[in-house]
Amino acid sequence: MRVLGVDPGLTRCGVGVVEGVAGRPLAMLGVGVIRTEADAALGERLVAVERGIEEWLDTHRPELVAVERVFSQHNVRTVMGTAQASAVAVLCAARRGLPVALHTPSEVKAAVTGSGRADKAQVGAMVTRLLRLAAPPKPADAADALALAICHIWRAPAQNRLRRAVAAHHATKGRST
Amino acid sequence: MRVLGVDPGLTRCGVGVVEGVAGRPLAMLGVGVIRTEADAALGERLVAVERGIEEWLDTHRPELVAVERVFSQHNVRTVMGTAQASAVAVLCAARRGLPVALHTPSEVKAAVTGSGRADKAQVGAMVTRLLRLAAPPKPADAADALALAICHIWRAPAQNRLRRAVAAHHATKGRST
Repeated sequence: MRVLGVDPGLTRCGVGVVEGVAGRPLAMLGVGVIRTEADAALGERLVAVERGIEEWLDTHRPELVAVERVFSQHNVRTVMGTAQASAVAVLCAARRGLPVALHTPSEVKAAVTGSGRADKAQVGAMVTRLLRLAAPPKPADAADALALAICHIWRAPAQNRLRRAVAAHHATKGRST
Repeated sequence: MRVLGVDPGLTRCGVGVVEGVAGRPLAMLGVGVIRTEADAALGERLVAVERGIEEWLDTHRPELVAVERVFSQHNVRTVMGTAQASAVAVLCAARRGLPVALHTPSEVKAAVTGSGRADKAQVGAMVTRLLRLAAPPKPADAADALALAICHIWRAPAQNRLRRAVAAHHATKGRST
């Protein structure tokens, strides 16, 4: 399974591609940051994010895009930019018919470090270890994008098992009536 | 001047096109609502909003797009959807090289009713009067989109005068040194 993780932001949008299946070593195929100028008009910034995401989709052809689920309990200004950048990432994926998965920051931290309240350094350290990198990806947005992709690959089997169990339960009920 | 006003939202995105200049009667060229299903995936909804905005841009060829500036002091869930829908509208305009203007809800209300705290009914009544319509556009999102376009047409001359005054001031200073 090849997943593009996106840590959305207008100033820095982290992107990272991870390939693998749960229970097997994972491989990083690419990592980077799409940057836009803080003093540019909102429209220009969104167009730049769109262009960047399209390039990553063209280059790496992921099967799924995992994007951080945005909440608004954070800083007001930051959250608006994050919501707008995430909308562009989700739009680019959906336009190609790619499935989009949203994961919360605490789900991602819990998946890669075991704790939903881990700090940036801990996430960076685990991403480095799990992908067997020489050093933690910089900036943190890039490491977070990889963590999102890893989180999705590891959570997907559990979600699929749940779906199969529900389907099997319904099939059994169907036979017994 | 022909302006497309967009009152962004995922469930209902109001759109309205107004043509005119400040101080002259205005003309409505079109009004409507882009709707998406509340139970559809976020990606599908954003793609539907994009398709809708593109159709309005193709049909009416506005010179400028006026979008409501989103704040996050409102309901958390609503604001995220509003920010994401507004990102799509701004992106569609900027991709075509169209200027985008953002106006706050109170700027819009103040422009069309004289009060920044006017209610929906008052905005609807004034939009109906200013555009010489037979009845207030329904739903309120459609009326709000027209109000945004009117607000922009009326505020633009003041903004341009300010810009000219600043430029003239600099030119005078340039000559006197």
